[in-house]
Amino acid sequence: MSIRDILETHPQPLGGDLDVRVRCIETCNECAATCTSCADADLGESDVQELVRCIRLCLDCADVCDATGRIVTRQTAADLGVVRAVVEACVIACRASRAECERHAEHHAHCRVCAEVCRRCEEACDDLLASLALGRR
Amino acid sequence: MSIRDILETHPQPLGGDLDVRVRCIETCNECAATCTSCADADLGESDVQELVRCIRLCLDCADVCDATGRIVTRQTAADLGVVRAVVEACVIACRASRAECERHAEHHAHCRVCAEVCRRCEEACDDLLASLALGRR
Amino acid sequence: MSIRDILETHPQPLGGDLDVRVRCIETCNECAATCTSCADADLGESDVQELVRCIRLCLDCADVCDATGRIVTRQTAADLGVVRAVVEACVIACRASRAECERHAEHHAHCRVCAEVCRRCEEACDDLLASLALGRR
Amino acid sequence: MSIRDILETHPQPLGGDLDVRVRCIETCNECAATCTSCADADLGESDVQELVRCIRLCLDCADVCDATGRIVTRQTAADLGVVRAVVEACVIACRASRAECERHAEHHAHCRVCAEVCRRCEEACDDLLASLALGRR
Repeated sequence: MSIRDILETHPQPLGGDLDVRVRCIETCNECAATCTSCADADLGESDVQELVRCIRLCLDCADVCDATGRIVTRQTAADLGVVRAVVEACVIACRASRAECERHAEHHAHCRVCAEVCRRCEEACDDLLASLALGRR
Repeated sequence: MSIRDILETHPQPLGGDLDVRVRCIETCNECAATCTSCADADLGESDVQELVRCIRLCLDCADVCDATGRIVTRQTAADLGVVRAVVEACVIACRASRAECERHAEHHAHCRVCAEVCRRCEEACDDLLASLALGRR
Repeated sequence: MSIRDILETHPQPLGGDLDVRVRCIETCNECAATCTSCADADLGESDVQELVRCIRLCLDCADVCDATGRIVTRQTAADLGVVRAVVEACVIACRASRAECERHAEHHAHCRVCAEVCRRCEEACDDLLASLALGRR
Repeated sequence: MSIRDILETHPQPLGGDLDVRVRCIETCNECAATCTSCADADLGESDVQELVRCIRLCLDCADVCDATGRIVTRQTAADLGVVRAVVEACVIACRASRAECERHAEHHAHCRVCAEVCRRCEEACDDLLASLALGRR
């Protein structure tokens, strides 16, 4: 069962591309969990002192992804300005977290995984923004 | 890529059954998203007045599942008492939300989906609690 | 005791205007709680059908305020681009929630309170954005 | 303006002691913010390696306090079993976080502040639990 299954049962579904919306929600939720896990793995490393910025940015990214996943999930009486602003903030948080994780990717496998998940979340958010812009025409 | 991929890269992995932990995290995150979506679908129904308790319990369940998913994801320096208490609260929140959704399952497909996801989350949380109890022996 | 007390003990405090930062954190946290309460009070009203958009926007606003309050609270290794993007999203979420609450302020005292708290949060976020812009010069 | 102002406007207020409820919500929200700040201040310390357990427990406590504050704020169609379970988890999370912060209180003022705020949140949650038990008679 997936988020798509329940989105499709909504009595007043939002228009627009459902695939794009589903992918945005799924990657936001995946990225929130992955950033939570990466910050936690950083904390367990012997060189934690070198990973302070990574922890900080992963905590921020998890919080923004959580809020974004919730807001994009809601279809009733949406305010597109709010959706757009939080998805844009999510792109920026993912990009910052990815850039920092990439710096540690050679030494820490969790940063490698996290950078990849952040990249996918960035893309899925960008795709939703593009689809919302199309919707306004 | 899944939460398992990043959990496995942790420098100081918690012992215990990783499958059980992964399933608990995955179902908590799935249940948080599903309850957010069910509360939102309820809001869009013409009989929203009948669904007030369903909305309330789904909002609570989403909040508890979110916190539980984050806490079970963390492996560094865990306090088992905290983990156990929040997972127990999650079981209770899922059970309440499921019982209410089941009452509306005949009329609303989103409640049917949500009840099923809550049930799976309850089970996965119960399995984690059992595995933590074993770990203490 | 207040958030200021603990911010002042940080080993590497962020520069900038501490009053402005404290006020932004405090109003984000107050607005998250107030929007949670307003959505819940809406749910208890006999005209809940008329309040669906108010509930939706208050839920979104609570989620964005929560994430924003957490991120502005953190002082270690901040990324100003992330801070700015999430505070901007917060302004937009507060504005949408306030506008909708104002429509119901005559009939519902909770909407009156919530509109006022959203307005204050908007202002405090705008003040932080102005102070961050000054900091870049 | 305070959380009490908006709770009092609820169309179907929960019975029970409003002072106790208000204090529980306020201290949960204060404790969430304080634990977020303490974890962040720990990250900025030169002896961060010694503070790993403190960071972990403060992150957990912030997440549980956030969920608890939201759930206790809601008055519509509450499930007392859910409220009780999450408030009990909050007591345990605050206690764990306080105990660890107390170990560092001599060296780190933020841990001193955080331990005190956790203690107050524990008490306020215990008071709410006692008042809910009375309500059942």
